[in-house]
Amino acid sequence: MILLGLDPGLGTTGWGVIAAEGNRLRHVGNGQIKTEPSMPLPRRLTYLHAALAEMIRVERPDGAAVEEVLGNSNAQSTLKLGQARGIVLLSAAQAGLIVGEYHPSIVKKAVVGTGGADKKQIQAMVGHLLPGVKLTGPDAADALAVAITHAHHLASARAQMRRTGISA
Amino acid sequence: MILLGLDPGLGTTGWGVIAAEGNRLRHVGNGQIKTEPSMPLPRRLTYLHAALAEMIRVERPDGAAVEEVLGNSNAQSTLKLGQARGIVLLSAAQAGLIVGEYHPSIVKKAVVGTGGADKKQIQAMVGHLLPGVKLTGPDAADALAVAITHAHHLASARAQMRRTGISA
Repeated sequence: MILLGLDPGLGTTGWGVIAAEGNRLRHVGNGQIKTEPSMPLPRRLTYLHAALAEMIRVERPDGAAVEEVLGNSNAQSTLKLGQARGIVLLSAAQAGLIVGEYHPSIVKKAVVGTGGADKKQIQAMVGHLLPGVKLTGPDAADALAVAITHAHHLASARAQMRRTGISA
Repeated sequence: MILLGLDPGLGTTGWGVIAAEGNRLRHVGNGQIKTEPSMPLPRRLTYLHAALAEMIRVERPDGAAVEEVLGNSNAQSTLKLGQARGIVLLSAAQAGLIVGEYHPSIVKKAVVGTGGADKKQIQAMVGHLLPGVKLTGPDAADALAVAITHAHHLASARAQMRRTGISA
């Protein structure tokens, strides 16, 4: 199963694709889509949408996941993030993907083992869990962390279904 | 010139179309696109995007405008608004429209004459400026107010260019 993790941002959106076969994970690809701050906002969003659609067309994931966003006290940065996040969710949904959402602490727990992990710990563990991965940057690492979380979650759900006798 | 005003919202996005001929304004159409809160967010955004694309295809505006958003202290509502606003800006840009942005106080001033006008005053003035208009609701009225603001702004810009000898 090919899973896509996404870390939305107006300036930089990270993406990461992994293959999950049973309990084994393999890195497929990762990258960062950057938009130019000097461009008008509608054009930045159009560029982000086109780049995401092209990446999804090439990578052909079976499912997608993003982090839940809590927003912060800076309304302008929350608004920017929201605008980019809307485009990211739209792009995945238009490709027919169901999008899982995970609280940041769940992602940290799934990847590092503790809900309070920092960015460097996440990057190190993503490198450990996906041997040979070359990370494009911190946002791509966060996206891979979300994809790993999604893989764990789906594996647990399947195991749960087997235990209760429901066929997956 | 056919101008589209947009009032983005995740639950309800208002739109309004006017024809601006010199200093005369005429109502063309207005409406509200609602998305179902019980639907998953990516599906609500996909629905909003498809409905906007269809409306723009039918109305064929030459330009578009939205209000600038300041966001507020409620991060979750700012995030929701941002996600819907991203889709609205994308839809307009994908149709090849340039999108003007106006501060809310500029819209109030253009329509009512004072930057501190309330919703009821805006609705009353939209009805006065566009005789015979039937408002679908308050969000459609706000969208028409933005379209009217855009028409005034473009007319002033043209007058300015005539005065300075630059051909529009």
